[in-house]
Amino acid sequence: MNREADFIEALRALPLHPGARGLEDDCAVIRFGTETLILTHDMLVEGMHYRAGADMADVAWKLVATNLSDLAAKGAQPIGVLIGHMLGHDDKRFVEGLGEVLARYDVPLLGGDTVSGDGPKAHGLTAIGRATHTPVPSRAGAKAGDAIYVTGTLGAAMLGYEGDARFAEAFNRPHALLEEGRALAPLVGAMMDVSDGLLLDCWRMATASTFVAFELERELMPVADPARREECLRWGDDYQLLFTADPQIALPVAATRIGQVTVADFAALRLDEDILTPANDLGYRHT
Amino acid sequence: MNREADFIEALRALPLHPGARGLEDDCAVIRFGTETLILTHDMLVEGMHYRAGADMADVAWKLVATNLSDLAAKGAQPIGVLIGHMLGHDDKRFVEGLGEVLARYDVPLLGGDTVSGDGPKAHGLTAIGRATHTPVPSRAGAKAGDAIYVTGTLGAAMLGYEGDARFAEAFNRPHALLEEGRALAPLVGAMMDVSDGLLLDCWRMATASTFVAFELERELMPVADPARREECLRWGDDYQLLFTADPQIALPVAATRIGQVTVADFAALRLDEDILTPANDLGYRHT
Repeated sequence: MNREADFIEALRALPLHPGARGLEDDCAVIRFGTETLILTHDMLVEGMHYRAGADMADVAWKLVATNLSDLAAKGAQPIGVLIGHMLGHDDKRFVEGLGEVLARYDVPLLGGDTVSGDGPKAHGLTAIGRATHTPVPSRAGAKAGDAIYVTGTLGAAMLGYEGDARFAEAFNRPHALLEEGRALAPLVGAMMDVSDGLLLDCWRMATASTFVAFELERELMPVADPARREECLRWGDDYQLLFTADPQIALPVAATRIGQVTVADFAALRLDEDILTPANDLGYRHT
Repeated sequence: MNREADFIEALRALPLHPGARGLEDDCAVIRFGTETLILTHDMLVEGMHYRAGADMADVAWKLVATNLSDLAAKGAQPIGVLIGHMLGHDDKRFVEGLGEVLARYDVPLLGGDTVSGDGPKAHGLTAIGRATHTPVPSRAGAKAGDAIYVTGTLGAAMLGYEGDARFAEAFNRPHALLEEGRALAPLVGAMMDVSDGLLLDCWRMATASTFVAFELERELMPVADPARREECLRWGDDYQLLFTADPQIALPVAATRIGQVTVADFAALRLDEDILTPANDLGYRHT
């Protein structure tokens, strides 16, 4: 059994806000007066999401950037962040990194909470933004006939994690593609950020959308190390944007076409001739 | 040195949203057109805020209720909550308690994150609400001539924590005084919830407000155990509402008048003849 999946399934039985999108999406979407608010909350845990001894400035950067990446996939403009911080061994570096990432994306701090605790540290961040385009993109909007695109290169964070200095920044200080997300939001069918591995996130998008299948082409995939293509497609943490769009549209951002959306058949996801399901170890699964 | 205070001071040097209120308040307040959004985030950590082995349903209840209490002090109507959950020894009870507290206050779940991690567990909650009255009450609105009031009884959570079964619920399942907060919001000068001890929170309110001092009367204080009055005034976790109002106004909720706001002199806080400062151990200090 997957404990996280069981827990989320149990949460689905609770009263959900309509904007929770059935807990199937990375963000909540709330209509508020004349605005549409986008909210997301993610945690990082020492020993799970970052190594004990990591530069806490990088941890703070990644905590903010990964949440802003969720806003980016909604085409949202960030309003601010609330931080939940467990005091640790180098809070000074944490604040320095926090200042750097907030300045980089021009996002102010809204508040939060500071606590003490023994053992591995946990850090939470809530990011709030306003939609720049409605309807707000979701995982569920892919339509047969759309092309499937991804920005950037997959596997760079994996190589950085493994110690390749050329890719250290890709792992330690990922970018939130906020401008790209806003430019794409009016044009896309479905959109999400690739946090847990391209193939897994393609599976999620294909199954969240209605009556469609995703056909991916292996040789089109932009990978950081072609000799390790399969790993690059399954490792997460790259925070690129995965989206579908009418193939006739000229895209406002650089992206690689990796496949096409077709009408549903018995397989939701194909990679060349291979039929893929979550049993094929498609990406990073939180345990 | 107080590590939490140092950390928050360092955060104040970062770019703050105007609605962050200088990180001096329990909530952020953001104006959107004709609506005003209230946001708060608090964490609970195993071994710090709850005992290892506690009923996880109570932990979930307290996590939600304490954040809703912050919304109550703003007169806000909750919109929903985002939860950051670290999987632990009894997630089933956690979800049960979460369902009970959300049903009790009719608040839906908006989303969040689920993570794994070793060691003591940490849990975060972000609560979002809409203001029912503007200006939104803050700690800073006390005016000379106001009376000082507190709802309920102080020290009940302390007795519950110590094992007195009559007060177990006061500690394990505190109430968020949402209706009371909404009824009071149009009438109060300053308002906040008493989370860290009445005297400490009175000090904070007195010093956040301008040109005022608080004069409290010991014998007026509604305490759960008069033989332990001083402790009841310093222990936290009761989540009552502390507020100031014109003494001529008939209050819409039950509350005890505990003192009066006067013009500032050299002492911000007096209890009968005693001049109190944070050096007098006024309440619970997160270390």
